Amino acid sequence: MKLDQIQGRLATCFEQQLTTLNSSDPRLADAMRYGVMNGGKRVRPFLVYATVEALGGSPEQADVAAVAIEMIHSYSLVHDDLPAMDNDDLRRGKPTCHIAFDEATAILAGDALLTGAFELLANAPLQSDTQRLQLIRILSSAAGTAGMVAGQSIDLGHVGKDMTLAALERMHRHKTGALIRAAVLMGAACVSTNLPTEQRDALISYAEAIGLAFQVQDDILDIESDTATLGKPQGADIALNKPTYPALLGLEGARAKAAELVAEAHKALTCLPGDTNTLATLANYIVERKH
Amino acid sequence: MKLDQIQGRLATCFEQQLTTLNSSDPRLADAMRYGVMNGGKRVRPFLVYATVEALGGSPEQADVAAVAIEMIHSYSLVHDDLPAMDNDDLRRGKPTCHIAFDEATAILAGDALLTGAFELLANAPLQSDTQRLQLIRILSSAAGTAGMVAGQSIDLGHVGKDMTLAALERMHRHKTGALIRAAVLMGAACVSTNLPTEQRDALISYAEAIGLAFQVQDDILDIESDTATLGKPQGADIALNKPTYPALLGLEGARAKAAELVAEAHKALTCLPGDTNTLATLANYIVERKH
Repeated sequence: MKLDQIQGRLATCFEQQLTTLNSSDPRLADAMRYGVMNGGKRVRPFLVYATVEALGGSPEQADVAAVAIEMIHSYSLVHDDLPAMDNDDLRRGKPTCHIAFDEATAILAGDALLTGAFELLANAPLQSDTQRLQLIRILSSAAGTAGMVAGQSIDLGHVGKDMTLAALERMHRHKTGALIRAAVLMGAACVSTNLPTEQRDALISYAEAIGLAFQVQDDILDIESDTATLGKPQGADIALNKPTYPALLGLEGARAKAAELVAEAHKALTCLPGDTNTLATLANYIVERKH
Repeated sequence: MKLDQIQGRLATCFEQQLTTLNSSDPRLADAMRYGVMNGGKRVRPFLVYATVEALGGSPEQADVAAVAIEMIHSYSLVHDDLPAMDNDDLRRGKPTCHIAFDEATAILAGDALLTGAFELLANAPLQSDTQRLQLIRILSSAAGTAGMVAGQSIDLGHVGKDMTLAALERMHRHKTGALIRAAVLMGAACVSTNLPTEQRDALISYAEAIGLAFQVQDDILDIESDTATLGKPQGADIALNKPTYPALLGLEGARAKAAELVAEAHKALTCLPGDTNTLATLANYIVERKH
């Protein structure tokens, strides 16, 4: 599958699944929909579908997991944009959720997306309760105190402070890496609850490399792109005095780092038995993208 | 078991389970702990333990479910107290989480507690994956868009507006009722994934009656108590022009309503086979409490 195919498929799945969640409050439902229909790149769902493909599964097996992980990612963006956090008014050129609605609604919509992700997985049309539970274990662990939320907290704690490369990588491993890793592990769990260790390790190596590459490229784009292409004010990270890879390694150093990580990702894919073209394309896309 | 025994047992379980969650960021872990160690009445965990007891189970079977539902309740209080929501500086006489830490940390601590509740249930030491999954289904459904979060959103949408009794009950059925109902259903699921319909219905009737009684009594206390006993500014709801039962029914009417609901709860308990003394005591406690 290609990225635009997956984006289309995901839009349909989102409509179905958000309807399944059946909100008792229309305004909350609107804000949730706004929060997920954010024009995002859908990297995490893409990884779920591509991993399922690489292990010989069908897209139907991946649908609910893809929606659930993107709901978690979307909730984190809605909360991250709040005035008390990054205070962003724009995301991809559109008003952020708390601007389009209000702060209270954005907080609740984030909470509802987070809760809904687990509700959908618990009821996913999969083969067994063990499979549903495995998906919930992977996602909750990656999104929680050992993963994404901890990463955001570590990030907040370092704004305006010096940060070593090791500390920066630790922060990103939690903040973005954990969910990218979860995406491939969820893809694997959609196909089998008992993946051979070698394949599991290869998927994790791939995910860790592209997770970090994704962040390095984000930092590069924050410097290189103009505001129109990026959909957020250019140089926003620098203005906030956030630690970035270009700040630590220089712009050329950061580019070399991203290329090295993509090479690592390609190498990991050679250990997988199935068709890994889509996963390989995604690794390239991450450093070639302009926004 | 008595309420103070359960509070002690729960404090120990919280310590164990929060350690299990193993936060990668100490400040986040502190804020989570602060958010749950809030001096609350622990009504929902109490209901889990008392239901397990009424169905012949042991407290060990209830521990993780009790912790998980209280984490959900605690996260909702942390987010509800935020400046963009109810803007409360005090809860039970202590600074609220965003005052003790900061707003961003309080948002993240709430997110982490919410995520952690599902992570703990997914790994709970119970008999089967089906049982773990049933607990996750009950809790996610009650906490999400068909339950608690929707109730908070409905509540926000009515501040400063007139509200009928039917609309007020609908709001509370979502905002507090759903989680109280979940507490008894989770207690039941800790003992059996296949409860007889009559027992299940009786537990739901009991939970719905005490859930509403709880809210009616809260509204009464908001008028009757002084700030020191209540731990929050007396008359806070009236100051916010929130719709309340005494406002709609008068103080005596509200008291009669609470008594009627407690009688309903007692009646429902007669359909249960086991020892329902603890559940009966809790129903009385709800309208007798002074804070």
